[in-house]
Amino acid sequence: MTNGNTEREDRLRAEIAKVCPADREAMARAEKRQAELAKPPGSLGKLEEISIRIAGITGSLHNEMKSRRVLVFAADNGVWEEGVSSAPQSVTMAQTINLTKGLTGCGTLCEHFGVDLEVWDVGVKIPYRCDAVIDRRIARGTANLYREPAMTRDNAVRAILIGVEAAEKAKADGVDILGIGEMGIGNTTTSSAVLAVLAGTDAAEVTGRGGGLTDSAYARKIEVIDGAIALHRPDPNDPIEVLAKVGGFDLAAMCGAFIGAAACRIPVVVDGFISIVAALCAVRLCPAAEDYLIPSHRSYEKGYVLASRELGLDAYLDLGMRLGEGSGCPIAFEVVSAACAVLDHMATFEEAKINDDYLTEIRAGDSFTVTP
Amino acid sequence: MTNGNTEREDRLRAEIAKVCPADREAMARAEKRQAELAKPPGSLGKLEEISIRIAGITGSLHNEMKSRRVLVFAADNGVWEEGVSSAPQSVTMAQTINLTKGLTGCGTLCEHFGVDLEVWDVGVKIPYRCDAVIDRRIARGTANLYREPAMTRDNAVRAILIGVEAAEKAKADGVDILGIGEMGIGNTTTSSAVLAVLAGTDAAEVTGRGGGLTDSAYARKIEVIDGAIALHRPDPNDPIEVLAKVGGFDLAAMCGAFIGAAACRIPVVVDGFISIVAALCAVRLCPAAEDYLIPSHRSYEKGYVLASRELGLDAYLDLGMRLGEGSGCPIAFEVVSAACAVLDHMATFEEAKINDDYLTEIRAGDSFTVTP
Repeated sequence: MTNGNTEREDRLRAEIAKVCPADREAMARAEKRQAELAKPPGSLGKLEEISIRIAGITGSLHNEMKSRRVLVFAADNGVWEEGVSSAPQSVTMAQTINLTKGLTGCGTLCEHFGVDLEVWDVGVKIPYRCDAVIDRRIARGTANLYREPAMTRDNAVRAILIGVEAAEKAKADGVDILGIGEMGIGNTTTSSAVLAVLAGTDAAEVTGRGGGLTDSAYARKIEVIDGAIALHRPDPNDPIEVLAKVGGFDLAAMCGAFIGAAACRIPVVVDGFISIVAALCAVRLCPAAEDYLIPSHRSYEKGYVLASRELGLDAYLDLGMRLGEGSGCPIAFEVVSAACAVLDHMATFEEAKINDDYLTEIRAGDSFTVTP
Repeated sequence: MTNGNTEREDRLRAEIAKVCPADREAMARAEKRQAELAKPPGSLGKLEEISIRIAGITGSLHNEMKSRRVLVFAADNGVWEEGVSSAPQSVTMAQTINLTKGLTGCGTLCEHFGVDLEVWDVGVKIPYRCDAVIDRRIARGTANLYREPAMTRDNAVRAILIGVEAAEKAKADGVDILGIGEMGIGNTTTSSAVLAVLAGTDAAEVTGRGGGLTDSAYARKIEVIDGAIALHRPDPNDPIEVLAKVGGFDLAAMCGAFIGAAACRIPVVVDGFISIVAALCAVRLCPAAEDYLIPSHRSYEKGYVLASRELGLDAYLDLGMRLGEGSGCPIAFEVVSAACAVLDHMATFEEAKINDDYLTEIRAGDSFTVTP
């Protein structure tokens, strides 16, 4: 694998250079306004934190999350043939199509909440035709990372840039908030492998049972991940190399979407285990991207806690969901939208007439008339 | 205090007798359908549980939570004069009015989500005029429970029946789901006192800092609660007596609203510490009401965990909210509504074409065309 000083990698570097930290001045103004709202300090908890973060991203205290989109990146993973998943590979293709029809978990929730769902095929194995899917297929699935690198470095950069393209399209379409999901049988294996390398730990520390594995399949999954890392020895300081050797097309594209969202100053929801590993790759490549990440539901995959600690993301939906697809995003969008509404519309102590003069008047025992 | 064989108490007993357990047959059908949906078993976590519970409440698998209402019961608590709260009593009145104008936290969130907010005054101390508030004021606040019973048994029953009335009005108005909130300075003290009696524990085990107390005010709050319980020695097996002696008008009315919602077969969201103590009173009076309760956000008040364990309610919003008012309800309604949408609209394995025949076809390597 070369160090890759290609034209493509230069484009990615240029994209990364575009990302600016959040607007600290707007965040300070939002924090000041939160303190003035008629409530005990901090009593709206994470709604306050989220509203401040969004103000930093947009530079304004008046935010409406009207246009919402979940980006789902679909791809197959060659490592599937090692028996690391309970589902057949054909499920990736079937659910990629079903997502566009509102038939999957995430598809159903997006339709319910009026959220736009855009499916990008970056490497589904089985051929199909479905005009509702955006076709950016790099290959018919990755190679089996237990035997060889999942993809070339150049293909990893290609996948990342497809993610950037998806974020730029969202910007052009006037999207206010993005969520990043995936569809790819075997991608908890690739995510665990990437996380183990980035966190410098063993597979056992970060590997869960994915869609539901038997004890022996779970043991095999750990063996495959540790074996692949020992074989390829990816440099933990080079996230592109990590994604290329033990990642997947979906993970790499998601990583790119996080970077692209930050470059476009769009808040972006991190949803679930695979999504958070992709976000960690993005932040390792581009530290300023961290400011644009919004947490969502707590995943029960084992590595989630580790990755969320690395990113300082504190999940607030405790729904026991482990479906993937970005299925928590539509609900998270409602929470973010509520947080923005509170900052924008709730009364200050002054406006609520809870101030000292008023209280003196009341304490004096006067009756008080308010016309609604 | 008499044992109270009044006409009012008979009416309450009749209401309690109306409450039927949830429809187990509908729940079994919902559970079966959840198992057939195209996802790993249980992967939608609490969304699955909630959809099954709602099916049990309505008796149908097709539920839409279109009309949503938060009921806020407002009242003052005489125990305020013992220095148990950081806020002046006038805040109850000011915020009761502000709730109806969409200016408070809950008011803002209800407006944002298109939720109907109905404010019932069951005992605000300071006179005011606001036509948007439903006036059922029993008295100008309760008596100081540290010195005497908060109210007569008859007034406790009156307050409970006002809550029942509010639920019946919701039924008549075609409301699909209710949430129960409150506004009443000092009501974390009354809630902690009621919970301590019902759970047979000390004040220190169930008492938090409410809207924000200094160390000395917090110590005073515990002393006041333990003192009141020692003075009145309410019978833990008689929730009406407990509410009368150490509760409040708001708590009693909320308790009645939970019973009324169950009698009307309306799912009802338990939101926050005071709400869950009222729900516990309702279930102690009427065990079948438990089936109608839907959890919401995790409160950081100390007694919340104890009460939620008693009721088997597992909160799923971890937003660090401690504002009261039922402010978590509008977000919880979105989650419940999403849960119903999944059960109703997500594809089964059969519909998603993820079945054995299909997989055999794919495994044979055929290319596959789907028109969207």
